[in-house]
Amino acid sequence: VRKFLLASHGYLAKGILNSINIIMGDVEHVDTLCAYVDENNDIDQLVDQTIKKMKEDTNFEWIVITDIFGGSVNNSFMNKLDEHDFHLISGLNLTLLIDLFSNQNANKSAKELIEQSVEISKSTIKYCNELRNSKIAEDDF
Amino acid sequence: VRKFLLASHGYLAKGILNSINIIMGDVEHVDTLCAYVDENNDIDQLVDQTIKKMKEDTNFEWIVITDIFGGSVNNSFMNKLDEHDFHLISGLNLTLLIDLFSNQNANKSAKELIEQSVEISKSTIKYCNELRNSKIAEDDF
Repeated sequence: VRKFLLASHGYLAKGILNSINIIMGDVEHVDTLCAYVDENNDIDQLVDQTIKKMKEDTNFEWIVITDIFGGSVNNSFMNKLDEHDFHLISGLNLTLLIDLFSNQNANKSAKELIEQSVEISKSTIKYCNELRNSKIAEDDF
Repeated sequence: VRKFLLASHGYLAKGILNSINIIMGDVEHVDTLCAYVDENNDIDQLVDQTIKKMKEDTNFEWIVITDIFGGSVNNSFMNKLDEHDFHLISGLNLTLLIDLFSNQNANKSAKELIEQSVEISKSTIKYCNELRNSKIAEDDF
């Protein structure tokens, strides 16, 4: 069984889970980590504690999704990939999560699932005015 | 001057603005619209009201960033592009916003700014384990 952790600077992780709940209803096996929301600014310590808790759930394959590549939250998890066994994705967004959650029970490895969801989420970041212009151009033609 | 509206199902828009504030400090000219968080489920009415308010700020060029392509929030704004003059992006994520906000005063049209930010944000959605594997392969070589 897979379990997901959404990790961010501030309340992005909790905010996006609220959006997921509105769109998909309750989803199981999803935790959030919101860093820098209190006086504790030691991100490495926070990530250490989080990974310790993750490892207590020994039956789960963990997929961690962080807010931004190169940010401190992602960097801190990145540094743990040598010692600990989990999957790490950067670039938290709604399409990515919906695709991950919708297909988590399909007969796919985590790697296949993640690669698919990453590609789909990239393809749905769009400048919509351009789409509309090309639609109009098609219609005219 | 440009003004930004972050629009989402639920509290994603407010959550990501909190993350932005932690990373970049206060940012000017950013509003949020969180739909479906109260008993008002009429998204088209909510978007109509929002666009009416946007048009009262006549000195601004508006850039609207919605949570997900094909979702009701994006669809509703998409339907307004024929009648109203604003820029619409789908796929709200942190890299996109940081790039938009950081470069908003560069000497670029909104179109150029948006196209750049969209491309950069796509490139930072990554499966980090794969990066690490290719880094290890390079080091071995």
